[in-house]
Amino acid sequence: MGLIVQKFGGSSVANPECIRRVAGRIMDMKRKGHAVVVVVSAMGDTTDDLIRLAHRITNAPSDREMDMLMSTGEQVSGALLTMALHAMGADAVSLTGPQAGIFTDAMHRKAKILGINPKRISRHLRDGHVVIVAGFQGQTPSKDIATLGRGGSDTTAVAIAAALKADRCQIFTDVAGVYSADPRIVKRARKLDEIAYDEMLELASLGAKVLMSRSVEYAKKYGVELEVLSSFSHAPGTLVKEEVKNMEDVVVRGVSADKEETKVTLSGVPDKPGIAARLFGRLAGAGVNVDMIVQNTSAHGLADISFTVPAEDVVKTRQVIRAAGEAVGVKDITLDDDIAKISVVGVGMRGHSGVAFQMFKALAALGINIEMISTSEIKVSVLIKKSLADRAVIALHKAFGLDRRRRSPGRR
Amino acid sequence: MGLIVQKFGGSSVANPECIRRVAGRIMDMKRKGHAVVVVVSAMGDTTDDLIRLAHRITNAPSDREMDMLMSTGEQVSGALLTMALHAMGADAVSLTGPQAGIFTDAMHRKAKILGINPKRISRHLRDGHVVIVAGFQGQTPSKDIATLGRGGSDTTAVAIAAALKADRCQIFTDVAGVYSADPRIVKRARKLDEIAYDEMLELASLGAKVLMSRSVEYAKKYGVELEVLSSFSHAPGTLVKEEVKNMEDVVVRGVSADKEETKVTLSGVPDKPGIAARLFGRLAGAGVNVDMIVQNTSAHGLADISFTVPAEDVVKTRQVIRAAGEAVGVKDITLDDDIAKISVVGVGMRGHSGVAFQMFKALAALGINIEMISTSEIKVSVLIKKSLADRAVIALHKAFGLDRRRRSPGRR
Repeated sequence: MGLIVQKFGGSSVANPECIRRVAGRIMDMKRKGHAVVVVVSAMGDTTDDLIRLAHRITNAPSDREMDMLMSTGEQVSGALLTMALHAMGADAVSLTGPQAGIFTDAMHRKAKILGINPKRISRHLRDGHVVIVAGFQGQTPSKDIATLGRGGSDTTAVAIAAALKADRCQIFTDVAGVYSADPRIVKRARKLDEIAYDEMLELASLGAKVLMSRSVEYAKKYGVELEVLSSFSHAPGTLVKEEVKNMEDVVVRGVSADKEETKVTLSGVPDKPGIAARLFGRLAGAGVNVDMIVQNTSAHGLADISFTVPAEDVVKTRQVIRAAGEAVGVKDITLDDDIAKISVVGVGMRGHSGVAFQMFKALAALGINIEMISTSEIKVSVLIKKSLADRAVIALHKAFGLDRRRRSPGRR
Repeated sequence: MGLIVQKFGGSSVANPECIRRVAGRIMDMKRKGHAVVVVVSAMGDTTDDLIRLAHRITNAPSDREMDMLMSTGEQVSGALLTMALHAMGADAVSLTGPQAGIFTDAMHRKAKILGINPKRISRHLRDGHVVIVAGFQGQTPSKDIATLGRGGSDTTAVAIAAALKADRCQIFTDVAGVYSADPRIVKRARKLDEIAYDEMLELASLGAKVLMSRSVEYAKKYGVELEVLSSFSHAPGTLVKEEVKNMEDVVVRGVSADKEETKVTLSGVPDKPGIAARLFGRLAGAGVNVDMIVQNTSAHGLADISFTVPAEDVVKTRQVIRAAGEAVGVKDITLDDDIAKISVVGVGMRGHSGVAFQMFKALAALGINIEMISTSEIKVSVLIKKSLADRAVIALHKAFGLDRRRRSPGRR
């Protein structure tokens, strides 16, 4: 008997049939004697449909009103899932984010959870109810509805699990778990049984879409054990948890590719103290997430600075850099979106040298040129041409011994 | 400079084009210097679509979850209308029913407004905002969302107008106002410039669909001047207001037909004191709205009792009457839905005798048989065969001098 928080994404509740299937899975858990809190996303493409509807009204909808609009998606799926549970004989109740006691800051469309008052959820649990909570949303200090931004429902689930001290937080998705590489690219990628928070964090920020960084950070901070698993099968998924000793036996846990970045190069930047601080300060002020940064000093006291930003921040970056660049005297600005960032990640790297060398060697063998390099304690990332990304990932996956063993001919 | 509450129904906000048109009308009012609060219904068929979606999950959805589901409709239209106002340069903000301070009882799907705390609406008005409120919904004492049932958005508008002491409450619909009879049946029906609350109440309960009784009752109780007008034209509509002296110059204000009732006849009811009280007590207990009642005492101490109920209450009525009828010893129960109730209404009747006689005479001239009669101070209703309803309405409209004058040949 424990307390389980389950989160079902949009594709898991895309239509009434899916919703009934999800209700069935919740009932399985309930029958095992667990108390269950469920966080739901909006059905299928509902959020995108609502965004499209808003853009038929105006191309610059206010963030506050977008939140009023979009938050209805999770309210609908929550109510329907609750009805499905009732039809199966369970006591259940659906709550909006505000009703569930989820309090956020006032940054509409990308609000952060400030705290959770789990009183109402706890009361319904004591009454023996399955509690369904609309994901992705909460209430601001001025009692407005705010949404949490991409991957927000995962964060809702983790935050509720932390507030309730749940025994586990299960994130149901349309994949079987976390893989050693994207299985659409690497045929012999393996599903991982477990992964450390830090590895998951690196992979999430490196383009693995299965969990958003924010929810993993939250889970790590509060020690919430996460399980990523498929809502379409009953196989166990991947456990995301505190690093344990034997995790270091594996040097590289996974290989990832991020094709959604753009490289910005500033040439002829005066090589004086404070220039970089000024440039990147302005970018940070505009909310741009700068990723890799490289600076070379060239002759005549002028430097070249290159950095990468997410594709969605390119417009903002251009504006900031044009203005700031003029002020500090940058000669030329070029943007290149024909790039991919390839990374290898593993906590085992800490005890092993030579991972970067092994990586460069494997890429050199394919004749792939490396444009930028960035490392952390548990990952090495390189920037290469986008068209070479898939080949690079396949080769690195093999080079680091991650390929799943070929199955014997008689089996599939 | 005044304070106006405007309510737009589902057909007025059915799609983005309609929503922009509504925003334009609100801007007109705003430009005249008025403060404006707007109550919106869900877009077009949204509510029906949501009900259908729920029935794909279960055929007995709980009322609480239906309210969670359906209340999203008005939240969506409110957010979109607010975006349209922003695009036209107005300051505007949308509020859910609970955010707007609308408090209801806990009778989900047919909740009653218990009170309004207009603090938040007033604050936004002081800031110069147009305030858009999701109609049809409020918050129960246990902080759940409840909907008000049919015509609920009208009631929301009237209740807000009362709480804010607004100068006027405009109800925009897809018709030009209140007519002397249904213009689809009576070609020469006239749009009324004004009508007394009591007349409107009788007409509403007699089948005129333009305003629900509950909102008119509320308006009467708090002296809110209502205007019913078309969202598709700029012509003045019909004012619903306190009765004034010259209203009595018109004996009959309108003629209506209600084809949605069923006649129930109980034969051989023991003619003893308390029997009727027992029968109708049970019906009231089951929430059945009994309308006309007639009782004839026949021979041998047995009576026949006939009454009418709304079509939607027939199933419940049958259950109650079968059980109660057995207990008191009713011989036979018959149901007849081939009936229509035809009514003439006017506060001027009070000072005039002979309205009923004139009505019966006009129907007799058409050879129409009257099955039941019911009168109040300001109306006379008769029950006739459904197939004769339209002919009866047309004849009565003419007999009471309500026909619009034929226009001169050159005009349309």
